[in-house]
Amino acid sequence: MSTEKLWGGRFSQQADAWVDEFGASIHFDQLMADEDIEGSLAHVKMLKKTKILNQTDSDQIIAGLLDIQKDLHQQKLHFTVENEDIHMNIESILTEKIGPVAGKLHTGRSRNDQVATDFHLYVKKRLPKIIEEIKTIQKTLVKLADENVETIMPGYTHLQHAQPISYGHYLMAYYSMLKRDVERFMFNQKHTDISPLGAAALAGTTFPIDREFTAKELGFKDVYTNSLDAVSDRDFALEFLSNASILMLHLSRFCEELSMWVSYEFDYLELSDKYTTGSSIMPQKKNPDMAELIRGKSGRVFGHLMGLLSTMKSLPLAYNKDLQEDKEGVFDTVKTILPALKVFNGMISTIEVHKDKMYKATTHDFSNATELADYLATKGIPFREAHGIVGQLVLKGLQNGKNLQDIPMEEFKEISPLIEEDVYQVLKPEVAVERRNSYGGTGFKQVREQIEQAKKELEI
Amino acid sequence: MSTEKLWGGRFSQQADAWVDEFGASIHFDQLMADEDIEGSLAHVKMLKKTKILNQTDSDQIIAGLLDIQKDLHQQKLHFTVENEDIHMNIESILTEKIGPVAGKLHTGRSRNDQVATDFHLYVKKRLPKIIEEIKTIQKTLVKLADENVETIMPGYTHLQHAQPISYGHYLMAYYSMLKRDVERFMFNQKHTDISPLGAAALAGTTFPIDREFTAKELGFKDVYTNSLDAVSDRDFALEFLSNASILMLHLSRFCEELSMWVSYEFDYLELSDKYTTGSSIMPQKKNPDMAELIRGKSGRVFGHLMGLLSTMKSLPLAYNKDLQEDKEGVFDTVKTILPALKVFNGMISTIEVHKDKMYKATTHDFSNATELADYLATKGIPFREAHGIVGQLVLKGLQNGKNLQDIPMEEFKEISPLIEEDVYQVLKPEVAVERRNSYGGTGFKQVREQIEQAKKELEI
Amino acid sequence: MSTEKLWGGRFSQQADAWVDEFGASIHFDQLMADEDIEGSLAHVKMLKKTKILNQTDSDQIIAGLLDIQKDLHQQKLHFTVENEDIHMNIESILTEKIGPVAGKLHTGRSRNDQVATDFHLYVKKRLPKIIEEIKTIQKTLVKLADENVETIMPGYTHLQHAQPISYGHYLMAYYSMLKRDVERFMFNQKHTDISPLGAAALAGTTFPIDREFTAKELGFKDVYTNSLDAVSDRDFALEFLSNASILMLHLSRFCEELSMWVSYEFDYLELSDKYTTGSSIMPQKKNPDMAELIRGKSGRVFGHLMGLLSTMKSLPLAYNKDLQEDKEGVFDTVKTILPALKVFNGMISTIEVHKDKMYKATTHDFSNATELADYLATKGIPFREAHGIVGQLVLKGLQNGKNLQDIPMEEFKEISPLIEEDVYQVLKPEVAVERRNSYGGTGFKQVREQIEQAKKELEI
Amino acid sequence: MSTEKLWGGRFSQQADAWVDEFGASIHFDQLMADEDIEGSLAHVKMLKKTKILNQTDSDQIIAGLLDIQKDLHQQKLHFTVENEDIHMNIESILTEKIGPVAGKLHTGRSRNDQVATDFHLYVKKRLPKIIEEIKTIQKTLVKLADENVETIMPGYTHLQHAQPISYGHYLMAYYSMLKRDVERFMFNQKHTDISPLGAAALAGTTFPIDREFTAKELGFKDVYTNSLDAVSDRDFALEFLSNASILMLHLSRFCEELSMWVSYEFDYLELSDKYTTGSSIMPQKKNPDMAELIRGKSGRVFGHLMGLLSTMKSLPLAYNKDLQEDKEGVFDTVKTILPALKVFNGMISTIEVHKDKMYKATTHDFSNATELADYLATKGIPFREAHGIVGQLVLKGLQNGKNLQDIPMEEFKEISPLIEEDVYQVLKPEVAVERRNSYGGTGFKQVREQIEQAKKELEI
Repeated sequence: MSTEKLWGGRFSQQADAWVDEFGASIHFDQLMADEDIEGSLAHVKMLKKTKILNQTDSDQIIAGLLDIQKDLHQQKLHFTVENEDIHMNIESILTEKIGPVAGKLHTGRSRNDQVATDFHLYVKKRLPKIIEEIKTIQKTLVKLADENVETIMPGYTHLQHAQPISYGHYLMAYYSMLKRDVERFMFNQKHTDISPLGAAALAGTTFPIDREFTAKELGFKDVYTNSLDAVSDRDFALEFLSNASILMLHLSRFCEELSMWVSYEFDYLELSDKYTTGSSIMPQKKNPDMAELIRGKSGRVFGHLMGLLSTMKSLPLAYNKDLQEDKEGVFDTVKTILPALKVFNGMISTIEVHKDKMYKATTHDFSNATELADYLATKGIPFREAHGIVGQLVLKGLQNGKNLQDIPMEEFKEISPLIEEDVYQVLKPEVAVERRNSYGGTGFKQVREQIEQAKKELEI
Repeated sequence: MSTEKLWGGRFSQQADAWVDEFGASIHFDQLMADEDIEGSLAHVKMLKKTKILNQTDSDQIIAGLLDIQKDLHQQKLHFTVENEDIHMNIESILTEKIGPVAGKLHTGRSRNDQVATDFHLYVKKRLPKIIEEIKTIQKTLVKLADENVETIMPGYTHLQHAQPISYGHYLMAYYSMLKRDVERFMFNQKHTDISPLGAAALAGTTFPIDREFTAKELGFKDVYTNSLDAVSDRDFALEFLSNASILMLHLSRFCEELSMWVSYEFDYLELSDKYTTGSSIMPQKKNPDMAELIRGKSGRVFGHLMGLLSTMKSLPLAYNKDLQEDKEGVFDTVKTILPALKVFNGMISTIEVHKDKMYKATTHDFSNATELADYLATKGIPFREAHGIVGQLVLKGLQNGKNLQDIPMEEFKEISPLIEEDVYQVLKPEVAVERRNSYGGTGFKQVREQIEQAKKELEI
Repeated sequence: MSTEKLWGGRFSQQADAWVDEFGASIHFDQLMADEDIEGSLAHVKMLKKTKILNQTDSDQIIAGLLDIQKDLHQQKLHFTVENEDIHMNIESILTEKIGPVAGKLHTGRSRNDQVATDFHLYVKKRLPKIIEEIKTIQKTLVKLADENVETIMPGYTHLQHAQPISYGHYLMAYYSMLKRDVERFMFNQKHTDISPLGAAALAGTTFPIDREFTAKELGFKDVYTNSLDAVSDRDFALEFLSNASILMLHLSRFCEELSMWVSYEFDYLELSDKYTTGSSIMPQKKNPDMAELIRGKSGRVFGHLMGLLSTMKSLPLAYNKDLQEDKEGVFDTVKTILPALKVFNGMISTIEVHKDKMYKATTHDFSNATELADYLATKGIPFREAHGIVGQLVLKGLQNGKNLQDIPMEEFKEISPLIEEDVYQVLKPEVAVERRNSYGGTGFKQVREQIEQAKKELEI
Repeated sequence: MSTEKLWGGRFSQQADAWVDEFGASIHFDQLMADEDIEGSLAHVKMLKKTKILNQTDSDQIIAGLLDIQKDLHQQKLHFTVENEDIHMNIESILTEKIGPVAGKLHTGRSRNDQVATDFHLYVKKRLPKIIEEIKTIQKTLVKLADENVETIMPGYTHLQHAQPISYGHYLMAYYSMLKRDVERFMFNQKHTDISPLGAAALAGTTFPIDREFTAKELGFKDVYTNSLDAVSDRDFALEFLSNASILMLHLSRFCEELSMWVSYEFDYLELSDKYTTGSSIMPQKKNPDMAELIRGKSGRVFGHLMGLLSTMKSLPLAYNKDLQEDKEGVFDTVKTILPALKVFNGMISTIEVHKDKMYKATTHDFSNATELADYLATKGIPFREAHGIVGQLVLKGLQNGKNLQDIPMEEFKEISPLIEEDVYQVLKPEVAVERRNSYGGTGFKQVREQIEQAKKELEI
């Protein structure tokens, strides 16, 4: 006596329910129900076209699948753990609907290429959505940058005031990072957009199938050239998790800065009430929850990447059950980054900029020290020496509370008789920013050019 | 006009539903509903005892909470995303049940210490269950070892036959590994079994609360001595994920071996039909799915560890929203390892051992080469020289298909006249195993002693 | 013809130098030269004691090893890649010194138990040093806390001012974290302090060795009870990397805060020139380099943990060459955390506290809002309602720049006639702190008790 | 009094040597000495061309740098920890050589853009080497595949015999994986091949520098458009580590299989003595050390990726000292994968294939079960039903030791009268392989086409 499993011919005992439960994937792979039906439709159309199945059988199966598709979209399907995974569940429902002819659907196909196909399709469909959400943020950044070209703020290195910069310039730095993210997700398509369907269990099939046909039906650009590779490759998922990790890393940097910049001490920005929360105990709190949460969620995406790398390491070809672990991390990553991008966009769109506070901070922080050193250098003092002189002026200034712009001319003359009145102009933050006009610099002209370039890239 | 949030006094705008959805944790932290109610019960009993609340109010709240507890156990509670998390959900239900007096429950407490308390309780309750499941496996291993003390199999290093060993000895190696796992999870209790309740938001409270009382009510051994630490510490969760990672690593090693040993080529073991599955396309397949899945699931646990480490790195004190990310990884780890341990135990309990195949493999593999080298060493030849001599005999043997036990005495005598007839006895696998009687070695006597010791440890 | 390798009997071809180079470990495992010699000395003394070797041979080997030990300490040893690893290098040097009798040293031992012994010894020796460095920091924290019990600063959650706290209390939070680190490294000893020596290749040995003797000679508390486990277990290294990761995570949190608190905007602390650096271009910069570097180095330690988990996953028993990868991560972690701890201690010891800036920040930040809510609650208004009232006062205050303590009594009376003059006292930061006298709270009395308790624990 | 550091103007105290040691990077960043000198040469040539420096000064600096370059190549340079990093070391040596004019080299530049430039150059130069080594392996695989198109071996899923395949087909699966690796490293160039030079500290410079000129001098294709991004971006390094991780994952899968296939039980392949090692205690051992080591080294590369992700997470713009941690992981990865690729190539080039053993394994393993099921399906039995029938034949066959090809025709006829004599032909492994001629399948024709395609791609 065989068991009731679809694959149970050679088995004489059946697993306990709790063991089946452990092995089942239906609780998460039902997310690919749509893709599974699409894959099956493409496959049966091909079986019909190649006459591997006759027209009657094919049409019956097609009708059955379309029916299931409709039920799915109307949320009428019911999946069971007994049927292990989405593939077996759909096939079992098909059998209920059209009887034993359903069994012919699996001709020339295996669960190994089927699941790989579903997973490719799943990722393939999400990539454009992610790219679109990133571009939405890029557009917001460009818009905000446009409004803030001449908003002066402290530029930081080591979280110390370094040199005054344009807030628009700062925003455009994130534009650049996200541009690379877009490029990475676009490259990700290359290795996602390949059809494994027809690789069968691992070795291809003896049936005269037409893999080009199914690939085209499913919108795949390419077809795997090696069947072993087709069923065991998860590079596209690893690339996806790596790209998502870098994306989240970028967002986490912005969120980190946001959380500081809305603090009592910085007070450079204010977040909308819509993207902050209060405290159950402290009535005055306005917490940048969304920023913190996006920052915090980077960790989980890194974890999914690490998890899949570890899981796949040392796996012999071709399919192993370990590969069932490939999906949840990817699904959760999609579920994490899509809303994170949307929330991020809403959050930064509604920021209120405290321009006065930003500007004021650049006038008492000695961040014009480089200006003075550069000024001295243009007067012929080797830069390293100029640097040393200014360093000592700063030290003295910190001790007696005097800013560089407050040093009287006679003291300047003692340092070098070449220093002229124009030094005071040079020491103004807005001048410091404006004059940094090297390519890619924070000078207003440069920032405007960056913005123009970005608009072209975004076609806005 | 304030918003309707419980904390919304100072807010004039409300978040969109999809933003709330992103920030909410109710879809996963409802797993701590029981712990949340217990924590609240302990808290209100303390408020009553210390007279911070009067008897009427306290009793009303207690009755309300008990009512909610009952509803929970009867699966009648309905949670909403609008109420963000399990704490707000329960409080909101309480308000529905008993009216505004519910608001007094939160006196002298904050969500920060509340969530920390729930999470501590959650882990605290799971640790003994995990330890118990590990011990069940240890008992199975001891039982199997007991039956297989004299089952001879190849011992491997580099997956090459090294020296014959007792299969019982092999099983006891895993007993030892799991013993360390138990010790780690027991140590994990130390930093889990501490009550954060009463630390309030971060700084303690002005109410004359009694933290010892609530700790005792909740069965906590200890109380956090610093309120900032109490709300921001997640060491117990990191320890848990680290311990779970090492546990899964151990299981993955066994599962790797299982997957090889049930292969066509090894064929040393056979798994029960109950812990294997078939193929949808290849009727002869009997796949060690459960072993592969346990092996594969190590990756996800490693990922959760890495995720939480990354998330918590560089977080300023005390609570930050990033910490909301602490729970899902831990919950998923519990959900992964508990059934993994159970399935593992079932799987190894029902293994069929092919003793003949194991034994046969030890007679044609030159794994008695060490015996010969040791034998020569006892005859006074420096070990390194003896090693070289035997190495060359093996090389010759491989070329002409002759095992060491097949070398005639005259050839042995050419190597050294000190070699006697007893050399043939020494070259038998069972003798080789039996004679390895150094402490902890594979000699039968040693293995039996290990088993006796283990029985004492397990109290069986 | 055999190759010249010590193990080369059965080999007829030799590896190219660049292949040997890839496989060699001498460039890093020479860090265990001391441990390797100690292990060999213990082994040969045992061989002598058990008469496995005769006195002449043993004494010759012992003398040779002692000679090598002296050379090592005088940095006269020269290691070569040809000899692969530290074990083969030492043995080869021994052979040069005392001739072929050196070959007898390896009787009843294998490289597998030898390397495990060396590695255990290496970690075993470093643990107390690490614990000592952590305790040094704890002492510094207690000293600083003692000086700052009444230093008032803003307490943060979500990096927003939450409630005023004692700076001493804040410092003691780190004391508590480090206390758990000490406990973890002490627990780490348990699984480190076990001798694998005598497990031989994997199965024990036929020689009548005395493993208790060598364990005692080497100062090991315990002996592995299973030889397979002895050579393949690296739990102690994984525990070490996990503990080091959590330690670095703690330091990274402090360093993150430091980097903010020394910023222009916060300006609550100033670091000594000795622990900061300047900029090659901006003369005014004073960068908290050391804090940033410690924070940054967390990542590498996390990486080593992840690396070893991945490497060991799915490894069959007993020894595999993959295990050679166990050491570099651990060595680098020791090389990272020991100086990190020392630098951290120096850095925090020399911090200058800007008490006035800290205090001032607590008077304009509405962080006394909880006080008012609690005050209302004591007047009988349900806490949730009180919270809402205060929230609206804060909102109004933010709009018109009025702090809670500036609200005139008549306005308070409008809210509730129960509000009395004592409300102004309650709203003072120092009173807010002082009154948080629940156990573990930030109240001065509580902080002093924490400090006293800590002094007892540290025996100072 | 200022300190002696080049940036020490405002500093009044100096760090202790051991603190400097902790902060210094010279022990590893000297690997970029070449790149640093190249970068400086390009920079000074630009300063000359733009007349920011006059000809005399420029020429003196150029001559000095060329002199240092020569010294470097002759290994005559001596670096010191006092000079922190490679940049300061080179500048200090330059000052020794040409005096204070050396100080002018740093005009319009900062260490932040300098180190970014060096690091970009470093990775940019290594990518083509890595790609070349991968292609070398691809060529080897194609050559071996060419020789083994008709070598029949068991194809595995779940490490169970699934269907017979061509060994050439198996080898070509790795060809495909490596092709994607090449594509990833080529894409990696995109974000590496961008010049940060001239971004200065973070904001660009007031000097009229020519960033296009320096980029061209250094062979960069592109120039960063945003100076903040230029100094804080490490995407190229993260991409590199991710690509290297996936590459190592691929190699680890092959190595895992190798280690099994050279085992006593499989015995399908034999490795050359040149890529194996022996045991110090077991004379018969021939360990696949190189394969194990490559497999084991995946872990460290994964760890480096995880380390850098963690380190960079939440870092505010622009440069932070944490970023100093970006290099060691990348350097070690280069040092790991370049020889790993070379060793891997040598190892697989010298494998001896045991074709007879491989073939024999396919005749007793029921791996022709799919053939029979497919055969029945072509006779009109629905595939699912055919699968069940064959499953039961296998179960019976396993019990009575009879292979499918041994079943007499009359028994076949009982199953279905449609079964004919041609079934025996179908059940032969070589026929099973040959007939799997779907695109990408293991059929000989298909494998030959894959090989032809690959030759075109590799231009061989």
